[in-house]
Amino acid sequence: MELMKEEDFSIWYHKVLEEAGILDMRYPIKGMLIYRRWGLFIIREMQRFLEKRLEDVGHEPCLFPVLISEEVLEKETDHIAGFEEQVFWVTHAGKNLLERKLALRPTSETPMYESFSLWIRSHTDLPLKVHQSVSVYRYETKHTRPLIRGREFLWNEGHAAHATARGAAENVEEIKGIYRELITDFLCIPALIDRRPEWDKFPGAVETYAFDTLMPDGKTLQIGTAHNLGQNFSRVFNIQFETADGGKEYAYQSSYGPSFGRLLAALIGIHGDAKGLVLPPLVAPVQVVIVPIIFKKTEGEVAQILEYVRKVKDRLSSMGLRVEIDASDKRPGDKYYFWEMKGVPLRMEVGPRDLAAGKVVYARRDTGEKKELLFDELSQVSGIFEDIAASLRRKAEEKMNACQFAVKGYPEFESALGKGFVSAGWCGGKACADKIEETASILSVMDEPGVCVVCGKPGKAIRAAKTY
Amino acid sequence: MELMKEEDFSIWYHKVLEEAGILDMRYPIKGMLIYRRWGLFIIREMQRFLEKRLEDVGHEPCLFPVLISEEVLEKETDHIAGFEEQVFWVTHAGKNLLERKLALRPTSETPMYESFSLWIRSHTDLPLKVHQSVSVYRYETKHTRPLIRGREFLWNEGHAAHATARGAAENVEEIKGIYRELITDFLCIPALIDRRPEWDKFPGAVETYAFDTLMPDGKTLQIGTAHNLGQNFSRVFNIQFETADGGKEYAYQSSYGPSFGRLLAALIGIHGDAKGLVLPPLVAPVQVVIVPIIFKKTEGEVAQILEYVRKVKDRLSSMGLRVEIDASDKRPGDKYYFWEMKGVPLRMEVGPRDLAAGKVVYARRDTGEKKELLFDELSQVSGIFEDIAASLRRKAEEKMNACQFAVKGYPEFESALGKGFVSAGWCGGKACADKIEETASILSVMDEPGVCVVCGKPGKAIRAAKTY
Repeated sequence: MELMKEEDFSIWYHKVLEEAGILDMRYPIKGMLIYRRWGLFIIREMQRFLEKRLEDVGHEPCLFPVLISEEVLEKETDHIAGFEEQVFWVTHAGKNLLERKLALRPTSETPMYESFSLWIRSHTDLPLKVHQSVSVYRYETKHTRPLIRGREFLWNEGHAAHATARGAAENVEEIKGIYRELITDFLCIPALIDRRPEWDKFPGAVETYAFDTLMPDGKTLQIGTAHNLGQNFSRVFNIQFETADGGKEYAYQSSYGPSFGRLLAALIGIHGDAKGLVLPPLVAPVQVVIVPIIFKKTEGEVAQILEYVRKVKDRLSSMGLRVEIDASDKRPGDKYYFWEMKGVPLRMEVGPRDLAAGKVVYARRDTGEKKELLFDELSQVSGIFEDIAASLRRKAEEKMNACQFAVKGYPEFESALGKGFVSAGWCGGKACADKIEETASILSVMDEPGVCVVCGKPGKAIRAAKTY
Repeated sequence: MELMKEEDFSIWYHKVLEEAGILDMRYPIKGMLIYRRWGLFIIREMQRFLEKRLEDVGHEPCLFPVLISEEVLEKETDHIAGFEEQVFWVTHAGKNLLERKLALRPTSETPMYESFSLWIRSHTDLPLKVHQSVSVYRYETKHTRPLIRGREFLWNEGHAAHATARGAAENVEEIKGIYRELITDFLCIPALIDRRPEWDKFPGAVETYAFDTLMPDGKTLQIGTAHNLGQNFSRVFNIQFETADGGKEYAYQSSYGPSFGRLLAALIGIHGDAKGLVLPPLVAPVQVVIVPIIFKKTEGEVAQILEYVRKVKDRLSSMGLRVEIDASDKRPGDKYYFWEMKGVPLRMEVGPRDLAAGKVVYARRDTGEKKELLFDELSQVSGIFEDIAASLRRKAEEKMNACQFAVKGYPEFESALGKGFVSAGWCGGKACADKIEETASILSVMDEPGVCVVCGKPGKAIRAAKTY
């Protein structure tokens, strides 16, 4: 494709989504997407990784209905105030008007906490932790963008109830650690954790933490959040438990979710290049593509090379790798172009000389570097994959670190916006926040002191950025 | 629980669903369920098995939106006529009335075939086969039953387009084979394949095949279907391809889906007993539970037994088995009762004498049979699992075979209904079909001759039953 993503990220991004078979964006309802094999595979790998880690620390999988009754959704007033503009409502079934309208879940705190109030009786029932991987529905009125802002999106949502405030806070910390593993260890995406300002918290939460990463166009993207809900929901949904000494108390809750769509968008945007996708090996649908190189087309030679190629494939498959042979009629150059565009981490080329020498030539997608491996050295592929992942992670981290700016005055602030994360100060006043948020978002208000970038009065340090 | 399922299947069934942690049935919207860990695990195993088999024969996974525009849903007139009473409609978003109402997918032929018309251009694009595992939504007005008849249910739907009528027909045959593997090989559930009569075909189909199994109360349950759609949809959705000789033709299509909920209902109903669930080992969330038996509670003895128990667990886990140790404070009898109710295929008991002799005592959930294994013989567990699966399958088959009745006259027909599958004859006339369907359903009209059970005139053989 040879399209520089830095020049026009939006054009590059749409082209990659389409050509690489991530999505079909022609679905006739705004903000809704058709996930195709290549995109769905990557999402399923993220989901599997995350679900396993959540279950390792005691979350039970569950699946709640997509429909929520109006009465349940509207119980917690801050919560519904935050979501009421975004809810899709089912009002009819067949030719009947329903007695009460039903919401498509925008998130599942309310129906789940109805159940928590039935499931939790005693302190011995706590902590209770559940998770589900589902689609949620929000009627976005802003401009939609595939995977980034849509009306149907895929996520995992975790929900917990603890006996103490400390238990809930520790759970939020544990989740931040797990999300860090998913985002940075598994997907090689760097991210900062920001504590959102009061006005940008999850509706009904006491505290909201967000993972923000940086896209190639200099805007930040929120890819996951974790909320300490305190007792806000447990009081409304009557989630009470008997304490060890026979008293009654409301549970302390937390909820959290990464967006698989936004993680995929970040993965594509951050690692991709002019040739298309660049995938970290662990999530690549095809990890190694083998291209047989055939010059003299004598039948014997073709058969010999294909036999050797299959032997290489079998060896790699027996290591648990996902391998494909491209024995199509296309010219080798066209095959290279195609599989590079699809982001396959390693290409192996096998021609008559490789066959004779019992080796393969491999090319790394991320660096283009070409080397050789003997057949007996194929077990080294796992190590090469680790190298690729480490290198993608390091490059992305370096790039993000180079896009962090500390500014003092307003002109400097304004000119840094759109280039990355901007560290500044804010006095705490509404007028100055409004001024800042005319062109940027305050991602985080920190505990350290800072000088207000608008009025110059002392206040707190903030991190701001142009955001998606 | 000690509740005979034969005496009142409905009470037994609800009790098992609740006590074994399959479902929470208290969700405040009729026909919608909360899936809990035990039930969800079994469904995910079915899903994984099926998806793998479908992908082995060339299906690509995909994921389409849950919402379908009215215009697309209503394109095929037979199809919408069949579903219009059952569709949930989204009419509002936030406080806005939508310009056009949107349907929750009752099935996905229509939106998928819109895309097929974009994806298919040439005979080289065929066959095209896709599948997705999703929830579908149907406003059932009949009495709902958990997993059997609900308004939200989990399934996998496969969709294919072929260049020839023969290709489509062969695909339906291949799918019947794959569903047979899922149902009978994997889940140990016997089933008959019935070709549905004209009036009971899928809306828009040329032919509908259904897998029917027999529940303990003598009613049959449709657990999966496969439809040959001919060119009905391709003509309406303009799925045309260029043939090898440059002509144009409409594709031949098929669609198919098993209901994971109904498969789970059949699994529970058919294999369960007075003590609760009996699970085939391959789908059991816990395959082996180890219960340490401790008499003299000296610390040294407890530690020794627990160490041995962990060694047994590690050995079994290294074989890829799902193993749990129940070291809770409950009495052994209570533990047995609990894990039997949950359907765990194998219980191992380990006391001081077993430790001394380097063995374990095991009890099979399906037969109650108790035997011993030396530690070094633990690899035999895989073989025991195969025995358990074969035995469950055989017992269920024998039971179903004993419930097949061939009848001649109407009184005999009527008295056989509700006891299983009834083979009879039907003249082909509407009045006689109506009479039969007053109390039964005609599952299948066969090619062999038969004498009408109502009027006595010659006609075709049929299979009938009372159905869910």
